[in-house]
Amino acid sequence: MAGNSFGKIFQITTFGESHGPMIGVVIDGCPAGLSLCEADVQVELDRRRPGQSSVTTSRDEEDGVSIMTGVFEGVTTGMPIMMLIKNKDQRSGDYANVAEVFRPSHADYVYQEKYGVRDYRGGGRSSARETACRVAAGAVAKKFLESVIPGYVCTAYVSQVGDLRAGDVGEVTRSMVEANVVRCPDSGAAEKMIELIEKVKAEGDTVGGVVSCVVKGLPVGLGEPVFDRLNADLGKAMMSINAVKGFEVGSGFGGVEMKGSEHNDAFFVEGSRVRTKTNNSGGIQGGISNGEDVRFRVAFKPVATVMKEQDSVSVSGEEAKMRAVGRHDPCVVPRAVPIVEAMANLVIVDHYLRAKMFL
Amino acid sequence: MAGNSFGKIFQITTFGESHGPMIGVVIDGCPAGLSLCEADVQVELDRRRPGQSSVTTSRDEEDGVSIMTGVFEGVTTGMPIMMLIKNKDQRSGDYANVAEVFRPSHADYVYQEKYGVRDYRGGGRSSARETACRVAAGAVAKKFLESVIPGYVCTAYVSQVGDLRAGDVGEVTRSMVEANVVRCPDSGAAEKMIELIEKVKAEGDTVGGVVSCVVKGLPVGLGEPVFDRLNADLGKAMMSINAVKGFEVGSGFGGVEMKGSEHNDAFFVEGSRVRTKTNNSGGIQGGISNGEDVRFRVAFKPVATVMKEQDSVSVSGEEAKMRAVGRHDPCVVPRAVPIVEAMANLVIVDHYLRAKMFL
Amino acid sequence: MAGNSFGKIFQITTFGESHGPMIGVVIDGCPAGLSLCEADVQVELDRRRPGQSSVTTSRDEEDGVSIMTGVFEGVTTGMPIMMLIKNKDQRSGDYANVAEVFRPSHADYVYQEKYGVRDYRGGGRSSARETACRVAAGAVAKKFLESVIPGYVCTAYVSQVGDLRAGDVGEVTRSMVEANVVRCPDSGAAEKMIELIEKVKAEGDTVGGVVSCVVKGLPVGLGEPVFDRLNADLGKAMMSINAVKGFEVGSGFGGVEMKGSEHNDAFFVEGSRVRTKTNNSGGIQGGISNGEDVRFRVAFKPVATVMKEQDSVSVSGEEAKMRAVGRHDPCVVPRAVPIVEAMANLVIVDHYLRAKMFL
Amino acid sequence: MAGNSFGKIFQITTFGESHGPMIGVVIDGCPAGLSLCEADVQVELDRRRPGQSSVTTSRDEEDGVSIMTGVFEGVTTGMPIMMLIKNKDQRSGDYANVAEVFRPSHADYVYQEKYGVRDYRGGGRSSARETACRVAAGAVAKKFLESVIPGYVCTAYVSQVGDLRAGDVGEVTRSMVEANVVRCPDSGAAEKMIELIEKVKAEGDTVGGVVSCVVKGLPVGLGEPVFDRLNADLGKAMMSINAVKGFEVGSGFGGVEMKGSEHNDAFFVEGSRVRTKTNNSGGIQGGISNGEDVRFRVAFKPVATVMKEQDSVSVSGEEAKMRAVGRHDPCVVPRAVPIVEAMANLVIVDHYLRAKMFL
Repeated sequence: MAGNSFGKIFQITTFGESHGPMIGVVIDGCPAGLSLCEADVQVELDRRRPGQSSVTTSRDEEDGVSIMTGVFEGVTTGMPIMMLIKNKDQRSGDYANVAEVFRPSHADYVYQEKYGVRDYRGGGRSSARETACRVAAGAVAKKFLESVIPGYVCTAYVSQVGDLRAGDVGEVTRSMVEANVVRCPDSGAAEKMIELIEKVKAEGDTVGGVVSCVVKGLPVGLGEPVFDRLNADLGKAMMSINAVKGFEVGSGFGGVEMKGSEHNDAFFVEGSRVRTKTNNSGGIQGGISNGEDVRFRVAFKPVATVMKEQDSVSVSGEEAKMRAVGRHDPCVVPRAVPIVEAMANLVIVDHYLRAKMFL
Repeated sequence: MAGNSFGKIFQITTFGESHGPMIGVVIDGCPAGLSLCEADVQVELDRRRPGQSSVTTSRDEEDGVSIMTGVFEGVTTGMPIMMLIKNKDQRSGDYANVAEVFRPSHADYVYQEKYGVRDYRGGGRSSARETACRVAAGAVAKKFLESVIPGYVCTAYVSQVGDLRAGDVGEVTRSMVEANVVRCPDSGAAEKMIELIEKVKAEGDTVGGVVSCVVKGLPVGLGEPVFDRLNADLGKAMMSINAVKGFEVGSGFGGVEMKGSEHNDAFFVEGSRVRTKTNNSGGIQGGISNGEDVRFRVAFKPVATVMKEQDSVSVSGEEAKMRAVGRHDPCVVPRAVPIVEAMANLVIVDHYLRAKMFL
Repeated sequence: MAGNSFGKIFQITTFGESHGPMIGVVIDGCPAGLSLCEADVQVELDRRRPGQSSVTTSRDEEDGVSIMTGVFEGVTTGMPIMMLIKNKDQRSGDYANVAEVFRPSHADYVYQEKYGVRDYRGGGRSSARETACRVAAGAVAKKFLESVIPGYVCTAYVSQVGDLRAGDVGEVTRSMVEANVVRCPDSGAAEKMIELIEKVKAEGDTVGGVVSCVVKGLPVGLGEPVFDRLNADLGKAMMSINAVKGFEVGSGFGGVEMKGSEHNDAFFVEGSRVRTKTNNSGGIQGGISNGEDVRFRVAFKPVATVMKEQDSVSVSGEEAKMRAVGRHDPCVVPRAVPIVEAMANLVIVDHYLRAKMFL
Repeated sequence: MAGNSFGKIFQITTFGESHGPMIGVVIDGCPAGLSLCEADVQVELDRRRPGQSSVTTSRDEEDGVSIMTGVFEGVTTGMPIMMLIKNKDQRSGDYANVAEVFRPSHADYVYQEKYGVRDYRGGGRSSARETACRVAAGAVAKKFLESVIPGYVCTAYVSQVGDLRAGDVGEVTRSMVEANVVRCPDSGAAEKMIELIEKVKAEGDTVGGVVSCVVKGLPVGLGEPVFDRLNADLGKAMMSINAVKGFEVGSGFGGVEMKGSEHNDAFFVEGSRVRTKTNNSGGIQGGISNGEDVRFRVAFKPVATVMKEQDSVSVSGEEAKMRAVGRHDPCVVPRAVPIVEAMANLVIVDHYLRAKMFL
């Protein structure tokens, strides 16, 4: 009820603050019998970790994960899986200022008002550092889904940075995504995006972006109407990520301008499968997966920490100036790609297990 | 777990099919001591009901609500409030075709696959008729919120139909919204929208639209990070409405193109309140309301039922043609306005009560 | 969160007051494809209804149930099943006194204090009339369980009234239970129990009793440790029934006096099954069903409504005398038998569906 | 859904196996602003830890707790509180046998059947070692309750071992409970209990017992009928503890033999409070606390690990002999006292916070 758990069946609870001794996650509801080792998780964490490239923060965190419980002789036991990530490279001194003055468009002010107390070091719990725990849990969800659904692949990628949009490059694979540091499969657009990010970084500023995601291989039938529709739970999952301001599935906001006769996805028969000729539905109809690719897009605002002086207010309620110090991402979307994938995998594993109950 | 409940504290469960004897809702978690009568609920249902105007379906349903339990001598008792709406004007014959052939971009196919059985009459449970129950429950939430939060007002309105966008008309009031049948406060745009809807209707076609919503008067502190952020729960609520394809809060998808230094909402002091100079955050920071207006937008696709022949597939798996008969909305957004408000009120009442626990 | 729902998968929500227009229940989570008609439910309600015999209240209620939603052409659709029971034979006048003076050992006082308002007619929501809804929902659970688990039988019976205990009669069947009005399979004890109940009734007094329950045919593996053990959820279910003061499984309180070497249930092999030679565990080990009969006992206090003058306090806080009028049960256990069965079936169907998720 | 969480508001999730590197608990929902340090928790863990005295196991575990998250500068922040206890003194060799043969009346067999895999070392997750996490979480609940409810005291004690029952010693205080190693406030009975336990220990056998609990100072109004009654949630909590076979509140099973006119708790006025002359209700009426002492009793079976040869079955399905080695409790109730208190505190804090929502 206090908001730190996600999922109803494959339920995760994350804990820990940016500058405390550790962060971590408990997964309750991972089926028994899944082969799982730390390398399965580490590979995804490495995609999220700071210090990867010139377009991300220069903060260097190893983010080494340890699986402490729930795995015995390399196999999940059906018991809670607890994973820890120790915090390192903490320059709490960088945040002395934050203790006194609220950072604009950060959570400092609302946490102070809501809780009456806050761990201001590095943003404490409101730091995007918490998303490392989601990535760790998502890696387990992914491994399970790949083990039970043949052909299951969930691929996110950067499709926009500032006003630069990727072109259509057809089927997107992970190797295309990982081919450049901005994680945009359109290599031409990627180059321009990198230039743009380096430019805003040099200005001490930041810029937003969009992460797109495609999930292939889903069976028909995931999603529980009328409220727990697959698109609704994906929407909640994505909107719960730091800095996200928008979510759309299939035709999204653009679909508004279409006529019904254009927008409708006509059915046809392919072998023994019922398929649709177009996919404006984004793979979900009536809240339930229809067997086509699930497609959605997530809008990230520009990172709030800028290296410029800003107007703000102090904890004691007086107007004050704020200038960030420290090392921050000029654009969050390259590192957000594995987070979006993780949250998608977590939503899907939950609905996969829910659907099993009623078979 | 089967998806027909929403909310954790002020929890609603809706039931009933489009062409069964009745639909209804149980509210479990409405505080005791609230004055409540059927007229409080009916007024909102009347805004959603079919047959209101030339831009909505000509199906005529009274949608008279009865409060059956949970109210004693005009006051809520803290016990479950069950409300019923009887179904009328059922022309099930109109749907004979639907029993045999899946309607494109409807839920017919996925329900058949997921459940192995479906009540095809009028779309059964997947019909937007279910949203009448949400409007009824939302009216109770609204009455409660208005009774405990001075100045609380939640106002939704149509801001786009097809490619026609409303201009900025400043503060939007309910009387401005109700001044025309399309529920757009920009009267000039409204006229064009009505024309457009009548045109697509005449063509047997449909068109999409956007509903915007502003919530005024919220205290600081609603929302439970890290997963149950106010924006995340609003996102889920809106994405759970039939035909919704997108959701954005504050700057939304447009914010992607801004620099951090532009996007950040600088703090200032106004009397005893900390306020922000701009509101790109949409009234929510770190997942928690910051006391500014909460602002979001919801994209609705064009209604899937069009009066044109479409390619489809039969229940027995053969390709077939489908042509809708019956009476349908050419554009859903005018009637979606009270649904968006209802879901917003339901999310907010839930977070209001949650916040009380931890005070 | 307000307490009117039970179950996590096969989730029921009951609503309605003793003297309002109706009571009812919504089941969300009943799998699709189950044949279901009103007669399936009515047969259980008839076992619970008042006015059956000399040992129950003379109040006569038909308790006719109507299935309003979730069933199409005689089969469940996976959608919420709402069932209504209209209230009849209301002599609200009998309760005029109750509006002013709290009935000892009833819920009047705590409801007034907790909610600040209460529907005092017939005890409103706190009346055991609410259990009719549980019996209706339990009948659906039972039908589902019998359809998926060959040999599944859940049988409750009266094993004690006052200080009269039934002897061991071996395997108990429903026909043995229904052979007499007190629902005790030991016919000799049953006669004495009936005499005792008629005697206390003549005195305007009441007496308590114990209901025992045996569930046969359960597969190994139901129950989710460490908190949602099968015995823990059965305990909660039984303790939530009006007038229940105690619950024990297997050896129960008596097992306290045994040595471990006596109490342990030795394993042996029977065909391909692992079985236990004794069943002090009551069919549950480590919180999980082990394939043996699940056995438990439920203690009911004497009914609080007695036809004798009692000391009490008025709503305005002054000492006052209270004397009940109206028609009440002298002993609740004969009518509690189907309620105990219903709650057992509800717990088991929930755990059956939960276990399916993780297979 | 997998059963490792308890509580709806003050929600705990425990994790870890008996012989893994650590066990621990996350609390999500502890209000911000509570002073909390490790000593607050350690004092309760020390009462539960093995190796305290001659009547408990000679296994020696320090059970030192570390608070890793959710506390900043000595105060809770409203964020998840994660506490770790490292495992020590593991003699996994003692359990080699357990890998091959199921221990009678333990969870070995059902875990193997349900999950297909199990961490057999020390019983893995099914070990009562898990209850240390409950005691840690309960200590936080207790500290919070004592900080908000003046006069709140929750005291459990041993009232029966085998067939030896404690006499009535009036008001029980913690110092009376801690005055002897068996934690029975009747010092005469305590001596005999110690003798009995030492005798069964010498025989390589074990014996059961009863823990009674009294909660003083509760306000009127905790408990949410109809399902989440305070007595129902206490029942579930207690039944979820390893080795518990029975639960009763107030008059319990003994109340069955009383007449209603004797059993009813007459109301009277004391100052501004409505009170009852007797307390057969055990402080709970209609599922809601009535302001009197909450009283309940919990039955523990004899510990299943006995130093005698027993009949059993091997993992491969053949009959086999089992003889435990290692160090085990001859009677669990002295160490169960802090566990019962912890679970009571966890239920009460949850209902206390729930009641606040609806004020």
